Amino acid sequence: MRKLLNDPRGVVREMLEGQVDLNPGQALLRDEDVVVRASLPEPGARGVAVLSGGGSGHEPAHAGYVGAGMLHAAVAGDVFTSPSVDAVLAAIRAAAGPAGAVLVVKNYTGDRLNFGLAAELARAEGIPAEVVVVADDVALRDTVEPARRRGIDGTVLVHKVAGAAAATGLPLEAVVAEARAAATAIGTMGVALGACTVPAAGRPGFSLEEGEAELGLGIHGEQGVRRVALRSADALVEAILDTVLADASLGAGERVALLVNGLGGTPPMELAVVARQALALLRARGLVVERAWFGNLLTALEMPGASLTVMRLDDALLERLDAPTDAPAWPGSGRIAAARNLVGTAAAPVVETERPATPGGEAVRRAVLAAATALEAAEERLTALDSAAGDGDLGISMSRGAAALRILPDTAWAEAPSALLRMGEALRRAIAGSSGPFYATALLRAARGLPDAPGAGDWSRALTAAVEAIAEMGGARPGDRTMLDALHPAAETFAKALDAGRAPAAAWGEAVRAARAGAEATAVMRPRLGRASYLGDRALGTPDAGAAAAVIWLDALTPQFAE
Amino acid sequence: MRKLLNDPRGVVREMLEGQVDLNPGQALLRDEDVVVRASLPEPGARGVAVLSGGGSGHEPAHAGYVGAGMLHAAVAGDVFTSPSVDAVLAAIRAAAGPAGAVLVVKNYTGDRLNFGLAAELARAEGIPAEVVVVADDVALRDTVEPARRRGIDGTVLVHKVAGAAAATGLPLEAVVAEARAAATAIGTMGVALGACTVPAAGRPGFSLEEGEAELGLGIHGEQGVRRVALRSADALVEAILDTVLADASLGAGERVALLVNGLGGTPPMELAVVARQALALLRARGLVVERAWFGNLLTALEMPGASLTVMRLDDALLERLDAPTDAPAWPGSGRIAAARNLVGTAAAPVVETERPATPGGEAVRRAVLAAATALEAAEERLTALDSAAGDGDLGISMSRGAAALRILPDTAWAEAPSALLRMGEALRRAIAGSSGPFYATALLRAARGLPDAPGAGDWSRALTAAVEAIAEMGGARPGDRTMLDALHPAAETFAKALDAGRAPAAAWGEAVRAARAGAEATAVMRPRLGRASYLGDRALGTPDAGAAAAVIWLDALTPQFAE
Repeated sequence: MRKLLNDPRGVVREMLEGQVDLNPGQALLRDEDVVVRASLPEPGARGVAVLSGGGSGHEPAHAGYVGAGMLHAAVAGDVFTSPSVDAVLAAIRAAAGPAGAVLVVKNYTGDRLNFGLAAELARAEGIPAEVVVVADDVALRDTVEPARRRGIDGTVLVHKVAGAAAATGLPLEAVVAEARAAATAIGTMGVALGACTVPAAGRPGFSLEEGEAELGLGIHGEQGVRRVALRSADALVEAILDTVLADASLGAGERVALLVNGLGGTPPMELAVVARQALALLRARGLVVERAWFGNLLTALEMPGASLTVMRLDDALLERLDAPTDAPAWPGSGRIAAARNLVGTAAAPVVETERPATPGGEAVRRAVLAAATALEAAEERLTALDSAAGDGDLGISMSRGAAALRILPDTAWAEAPSALLRMGEALRRAIAGSSGPFYATALLRAARGLPDAPGAGDWSRALTAAVEAIAEMGGARPGDRTMLDALHPAAETFAKALDAGRAPAAAWGEAVRAARAGAEATAVMRPRLGRASYLGDRALGTPDAGAAAAVIWLDALTPQFAE
Repeated sequence: MRKLLNDPRGVVREMLEGQVDLNPGQALLRDEDVVVRASLPEPGARGVAVLSGGGSGHEPAHAGYVGAGMLHAAVAGDVFTSPSVDAVLAAIRAAAGPAGAVLVVKNYTGDRLNFGLAAELARAEGIPAEVVVVADDVALRDTVEPARRRGIDGTVLVHKVAGAAAATGLPLEAVVAEARAAATAIGTMGVALGACTVPAAGRPGFSLEEGEAELGLGIHGEQGVRRVALRSADALVEAILDTVLADASLGAGERVALLVNGLGGTPPMELAVVARQALALLRARGLVVERAWFGNLLTALEMPGASLTVMRLDDALLERLDAPTDAPAWPGSGRIAAARNLVGTAAAPVVETERPATPGGEAVRRAVLAAATALEAAEERLTALDSAAGDGDLGISMSRGAAALRILPDTAWAEAPSALLRMGEALRRAIAGSSGPFYATALLRAARGLPDAPGAGDWSRALTAAVEAIAEMGGARPGDRTMLDALHPAAETFAKALDAGRAPAAAWGEAVRAARAGAEATAVMRPRLGRASYLGDRALGTPDAGAAAAVIWLDALTPQFAE
């Protein structure tokens, strides 16, 4: 069994302990699996209490809804098993007083009996208690009359309405009436794409073939009302909502709330896709969707699937849904915009295109074309090197980059810094893989603060900045078997040689030699970053292709510094 | 593939549409998969913007954290694939201005490159942008230095700190410094119990044998650092937290925040069990846990498993965690109580035990013992009837009930109403299955308002009330093939006969005959409630055992009315 559990027999208690440990507004009864609000007045000072509960396995229901404005207490049975009469009675005693209690119960025999008897016992003790049965599952509408359907996740909305009504200080009959009105106003239907595993059973309750779904699921891992071919999310949503709307005779102009409930094993990605279509379909049918929520609100362990609840709204119900609550699992206001909120994408800043060429720009162009030629000539060698420890695309990537630089328009080379910006833009669009972003970023960084016609010192600072940008972006350092093993010594050597008073051409020559030595040294380095790091020793003996490529273009620039 | 999807290629866009449709505080860029806050000032009036993003499949990350006090924008790539540079740049343009942007990036090559280059492009456009890399996965601590670890769900806490810092109006460098401090303060490690299915791939990324777990999971469906035998939740939590604490040299007296993150496929039940142990263990090690959360905060689709993040806290970080936010997925204050909040169970009200017997009580005792004798004599017949359409336990249940009534102490029979209450209590404890709660509730309801020495009219009203209680609790009506098919005509006939002036004995005789006719009629009824309803026609031909049992005890009472 793939579950994070200790002894399955103790799972409910341990779960509730974790629940109250992390929710200071809640407390746990010492002797029963009942979660109550942490601060409750003395029985005589209490208003009407709203309680719910049932089998466990439906988390965050029911304990997640204990809090001001929703439930006063939640009773937890074993997984998918009704809680005992004693547990329910203990919950009533703990949370209610002479003003009475409303017990919101989903329509299952065990829950009706145990909550029903507990209510009767509470009455005999002087606590008026009324059971409100929720039977919102419309999947059974063809064969079962409304009052006898199962109760599923629409129950959460009944908790909210009853809790909000009780919070206003209304008497028991009025809270019961509002809870019943809420229960009557909801219809729910769901689809399951698989089963769930009850901890004590240790294996799933049923199995589905690939491409099948259970329409009209239950929330206890049982099969649905009928097995259907798995259709698109949009088609399933339509099938479900058509049934829900027909059952309630809901049509254009009517106001509704929508609840998209995940059953536990369905990721938010899928729930959002379902919510999108559910909202769109209700609106297309002319309904006014006043509130909508999506999330895992009442689940069936890790069952994959979703259910949709539609509540017919009037002002009174809406006011209760909107009332404040601090129950930890209540999913928020549910307010939605009248239409999808789309905003335009801001355009890139306009760049001047017509500027006169400068000597600085022309020098960059000559250097770049020389580098491009050298890289194109080396394509085969770079491909071979990269195939030893990478995916072998570096040769073709460099050639593509070279081609992209060749076709830059004359205006791109107006002066040095703007030329570097245009080159970066061209390379990031031309080169897939990691080389494109690295070179593009390096060029952008090099362009920062570069004068229009840079001297050797300016280029040295630009190279150092570019190397820093590459290191920062990739999180690499020399020794990691990357292009930095060539570029870093080149930048450092160039700067030092200029500082030492060497002529630019001599200094650059030293830099290229340092780069070449650095690239050759990568042949004995283990890759430590990216996919190549998984190769371990297999890369040994071959120099890094990225470092080799850097030596090629660095070397091609040498004549420029001699001029 | 068991997913609620339309075309897998469009899933990210559809998901984001659903996300913004249900969150009016968010908007979606028309041309890029970017969610931004719905209300942002003009660029010149903006403070520092905090952005994040990455591949999709980690929902509610990252769009769920877009909101005041957290992110200004979230960029969504394809599932488990870094978003494009253009998408990131569009997000920066949409959300940031001259005050700059902080890009919170998890440590993956693709994200570093694409967010890094976008930041560089933004700078070139006059928007200062800084990348903050999160590398919180300590599972790799033995082999990988801290800065090169993967970024996983501790990132959510970095979003919170950075967003809260930006909301105070701090300049870019200060927000970056706080985000980096947060990233340095966290360590995370997880366990996976299975893989997940990328929609475009259609099948799980790896498979685990029963009883195995992957310790040190990744959040892209990849395998963990090592495969281990699946241990108890408590043992796994200990293994994980020991690693996290050791990595951070966290010890007694230090203040921390705890995040228990579900990976998508693990139900809240299991997360609560994990949270309980994680909190207990940190406290046992002497750490001061100031804040704690559990939930699905950064997931890997529907992967089963969980990860634990511990953040070393100081006052500055705590202030940022506590700052308000309206980001829909932020899990709330995280405040916890200093110790588990356990409350005692309220005792049952004290019932007087020593009261003198009354003629009314004595009459009840004689009647009850007669009924008990009759039911015991009928055990075999009731077992046979119940075996035809039920689980066959009715005979033994009735005998158990009879035995429980026989051993009630003399004091139980002081007067009629208290006798009925004691009988109800005895039956609910003695009889398993549904008969116990039904009879107990019926007796409690019958006792309500009953005088100490009831006459025939009182008993008639009590019987009617009892029948109503049974109907209400079970949701049954005559015709449903239940005990009501005997009891309902009995109550109705008894009341009418008394109204018509018949002597009590004659009236009761009519009532018993009506009950017997009603019970016999159940032989042609299909069960419509409970488990028996699944039998359909198989129950036909045999009367309902519950109705037959009712006739037996009703008949046994006849002599009492003759006295």
